[in-house]
Amino acid sequence: MLRTHTCGELSMQQNGMEVKLCGWIQKSRDLGGMTFIDLRDRYGITQLVFNMDSNAELCNEARKLNREYVVRIAGKVTERSSKNLKIPTGEIEILVEQLEVLNVSETPPFTIEENTDGGDELRMKYRYLDLRRPSVRANLELRHQLASLIRNFLDGEKFIEVETPVLIKSTPEGARDFVVPSRVHNGQFYALPQSPQTFKQLLMVAGFDRYYQIVKCFRDEDLRADRQPEFTQIDCEMSFIEQEDILKTFEGLIKHLFKKVKNMDMPMLPRMTYAHAMKNYGNDKPDTRFEMCIRELKSKDTPLQLPAGKFKLFDEAEYTAGIVATGCATYTRKQLDELTEWVKRPQIGAGGMVYIRYNTDGTIKSSIDKFYTEEELRKAIQNMGAAEGDLVLILSGSESKTQKALSELRLEMGNRMGLRDRNTYSCLWVVDFPLLEWNEESKRFHAMHHPFTSPKPEDVNLLESAPGEVRANAYDLVINGVEIGGGSIRIFDKKLQSKMFEILGFTPEKSMEQFGFLLNAFHYGAPPHGGLAFGFDRLCALFGGSDSIRDFIAFPKNNAARDIMIDAPSFIEKEQLSELGLSITNR
Amino acid sequence: MLRTHTCGELSMQQNGMEVKLCGWIQKSRDLGGMTFIDLRDRYGITQLVFNMDSNAELCNEARKLNREYVVRIAGKVTERSSKNLKIPTGEIEILVEQLEVLNVSETPPFTIEENTDGGDELRMKYRYLDLRRPSVRANLELRHQLASLIRNFLDGEKFIEVETPVLIKSTPEGARDFVVPSRVHNGQFYALPQSPQTFKQLLMVAGFDRYYQIVKCFRDEDLRADRQPEFTQIDCEMSFIEQEDILKTFEGLIKHLFKKVKNMDMPMLPRMTYAHAMKNYGNDKPDTRFEMCIRELKSKDTPLQLPAGKFKLFDEAEYTAGIVATGCATYTRKQLDELTEWVKRPQIGAGGMVYIRYNTDGTIKSSIDKFYTEEELRKAIQNMGAAEGDLVLILSGSESKTQKALSELRLEMGNRMGLRDRNTYSCLWVVDFPLLEWNEESKRFHAMHHPFTSPKPEDVNLLESAPGEVRANAYDLVINGVEIGGGSIRIFDKKLQSKMFEILGFTPEKSMEQFGFLLNAFHYGAPPHGGLAFGFDRLCALFGGSDSIRDFIAFPKNNAARDIMIDAPSFIEKEQLSELGLSITNR
Repeated sequence: MLRTHTCGELSMQQNGMEVKLCGWIQKSRDLGGMTFIDLRDRYGITQLVFNMDSNAELCNEARKLNREYVVRIAGKVTERSSKNLKIPTGEIEILVEQLEVLNVSETPPFTIEENTDGGDELRMKYRYLDLRRPSVRANLELRHQLASLIRNFLDGEKFIEVETPVLIKSTPEGARDFVVPSRVHNGQFYALPQSPQTFKQLLMVAGFDRYYQIVKCFRDEDLRADRQPEFTQIDCEMSFIEQEDILKTFEGLIKHLFKKVKNMDMPMLPRMTYAHAMKNYGNDKPDTRFEMCIRELKSKDTPLQLPAGKFKLFDEAEYTAGIVATGCATYTRKQLDELTEWVKRPQIGAGGMVYIRYNTDGTIKSSIDKFYTEEELRKAIQNMGAAEGDLVLILSGSESKTQKALSELRLEMGNRMGLRDRNTYSCLWVVDFPLLEWNEESKRFHAMHHPFTSPKPEDVNLLESAPGEVRANAYDLVINGVEIGGGSIRIFDKKLQSKMFEILGFTPEKSMEQFGFLLNAFHYGAPPHGGLAFGFDRLCALFGGSDSIRDFIAFPKNNAARDIMIDAPSFIEKEQLSELGLSITNR
Repeated sequence: MLRTHTCGELSMQQNGMEVKLCGWIQKSRDLGGMTFIDLRDRYGITQLVFNMDSNAELCNEARKLNREYVVRIAGKVTERSSKNLKIPTGEIEILVEQLEVLNVSETPPFTIEENTDGGDELRMKYRYLDLRRPSVRANLELRHQLASLIRNFLDGEKFIEVETPVLIKSTPEGARDFVVPSRVHNGQFYALPQSPQTFKQLLMVAGFDRYYQIVKCFRDEDLRADRQPEFTQIDCEMSFIEQEDILKTFEGLIKHLFKKVKNMDMPMLPRMTYAHAMKNYGNDKPDTRFEMCIRELKSKDTPLQLPAGKFKLFDEAEYTAGIVATGCATYTRKQLDELTEWVKRPQIGAGGMVYIRYNTDGTIKSSIDKFYTEEELRKAIQNMGAAEGDLVLILSGSESKTQKALSELRLEMGNRMGLRDRNTYSCLWVVDFPLLEWNEESKRFHAMHHPFTSPKPEDVNLLESAPGEVRANAYDLVINGVEIGGGSIRIFDKKLQSKMFEILGFTPEKSMEQFGFLLNAFHYGAPPHGGLAFGFDRLCALFGGSDSIRDFIAFPKNNAARDIMIDAPSFIEKEQLSELGLSITNR
């Protein structure tokens, strides 16, 4: 070892000890007779002292050291005269006796500090320097800690980790598969898995009983903000269980992580049906850190809660609903205009916004007070739960669009009102998802989760008559409005699985060609099984208190799916293309 | 849960308890009044009893159950009259009260038993059924156990697991890269990593200090027996260390695994130089479970140890050497002829074989006794270490070919003499590998390990004058003649790295294009670092006492790199090709 200790472990316990340390020069202060240097490694920072009086030559050497030089020193641990109790090594410093420069460094393109001056692209290009910043390193240490806790928890629950293949078969359903041309079998391709779904089901057929894997998955899609073409899943499956067993097992895992990482005792996770979530939050991944639920003024089930014939917009709308922002009656006209513009942005998509201020003196001020009397409005918003001092914001239009816009507005108001604290965590299961959703483009039903999800037994009889109403044994874990993962109880009966493919528009030939191996496996004693997958990158970001998964990936790609550090993807040599039997038709 | 217990845990402790079990029908015996069924799950086998007298209907139901049906039963734990103490549940049986068939099964294409009647291809096609066999499942359980032990050991040594990207950049050096066409950037490709080498070095530059990862790697090469296009490495790297630190850390890991898995106390691993291994074993991965070292009769350094001018073959050969097979003087002429044919096979490549029998009565019988006197031969083989009763086998020819053939002959004799017991383990480090090896085809030096391996400081001055003689700070871990892994201390100086690329025939432009990100990183304070990678599949096979890595991979590919269960690789849809901007030029 080039060192006896790391830069994070020396304290008064080692006072007087001769030690050797290695690390990077974080910063240097030259105070005339003395030079102080902060030496940094992964474990911390230790202060080095060079004294002009006792060793002028060495001190002059030290003065030549620039930031990010790599050095090795030998010296004696000494008590500091002015201690820094904010860091673990702050009671001591090292009186340096020997100094060896292991490597020099050019001036980095940005400062290696918490508040760096480097922009996103620059830091991505020099990711290996960005990774030196303690907060970025801490993110990856957290990731490691979580992976380790998850593995040990699941090991303890008798799950076994099995590696499933990365070079698999492309499915036309997976139009966003990355494919890999075979050199040995020209013209044929492997695909990279979007998930190990079929393999983990085969492991259940194989009797593995409890499987998990922390595994890379791939999706070649147009990247939305904060998506990555390669991402990591915690993938799990269990046999001889019911939905309740899955929920209990994995809320055990989540509680374990909160306890170990955050020292928080999470209560049992509440369950909310999909229908309830959509009705009250306009969203199947509600942020339940705060209430402010959607209250309907008009819907399929509810006639307009205001007198008819007075305001055309409400009379004609399919759906009208709003939220009550507690204590926000003080919002100014300017604030309300700005909020109206906000909901009208294309990303939110509302046509406009109605506000009703319920002032503390009991009066009402609204953008629709020329249509309704104060009494009519007061009654309506009191029914929505508003009290004096509150502000009611109402959107109107088609149900699905308006729910979506109200959900966004609710979250935005949550932000503005400071109700979405990163250090507060609210977890829940959303259950009873629809099995199928109608796709207007393809004019057929698509699987809401995937084609292997089982319908609820009590809804199976609706498969023919009313497919859209069939509920699935499917569940999502939602934390702070983020979908951390989800899963389902699977179909394990070959007839039901074939039926499902039929509903999804597969011919029997096509379903055999694509999923024959799974359908065949179901001929040989498949057990009842189910499972789920969590997005590990997202889970790390959540525990790290960040919205960006990229901060928790060592070498992420940018929004164009490009690794700008290594410059990939890139062109390859002609010979390589020709060996693969491929040519490029358009660039 | 559909069950209260698994099929592997009930004993007399639960005698009298009402339990529910789930599993597969392993076998069924109908003894008239009673029907006995072995119920199997991942955890074991439990005997079920159905009694015609007490419940004829249920017993008749049970008689209809075929092998591999999936059932759920309820019943009472009872002491067996005839106990089977070979299995943990052998003291009890379950008097079944309720029976539910969860799924039926067709007759499997082969028997789900230790000694199955299924051939390789059939079992690969129905891998999910092969995985039901206890020995195959045990292999994957061993794999999980090893992964878990490795992770916990390395966690304890402050290594942090960091996931490196799977979609990286193709290098022309890596002619065997799998490539992945980008849909977003038509005409450009990612590559799948053959190893995370450059990324782990960047993590050291980033100050991560100790990194590991159990990670999938990919190589699109013509498959030799028992290679897989995707394989798993235990990949590790450390900073501020010397070779000795790496060897100590990882022999700690290996000893830990032998202790935990095999309850074996391994001694400290011996080190052997590459030169010594080649001279004495003809091989850089010697099987040191047995001696039978190669003894030279003639080499570059040794004149012929027999009188000159008597036997043309020996006089003219570059290299002549042999092995002493202790106690094998009894080999018959027929056995020796057969052995001669064996060494002449193209895979071994010897032109012929000379034998000298040193009989127990002190006489000599040899295929060359018409050229040399008995006394001359006796003296020569005594110098080789032979004693009365031994057999000496000698090959002659060019040094490298003959060493290779002798190595094979030695291993073959080891097999025949029963010296290669699967339950005996002999581990060592092979060190001081050459940095470079001359390639006759390309007429230039290639890196023996890879271009990032550092030369020994004392040999750096030979880089210009005698590159072939430069030794590297490189090491391999060898167990029982199998190379389990290897690594090196890396170059961390940008000038030396550029020099290395130059020697390997890269232009400065080419090396910047390919490895610019690493060379750039070396401008910003790279620490001294080094590491290694172990082949995890191979390690599992070794601990499992098998030669075949395929037995330790859940879903392996065959020798044509094909997954015959899912039928991959396969053709993809025209639309997909066109979206990728590709066309197929030859099939």
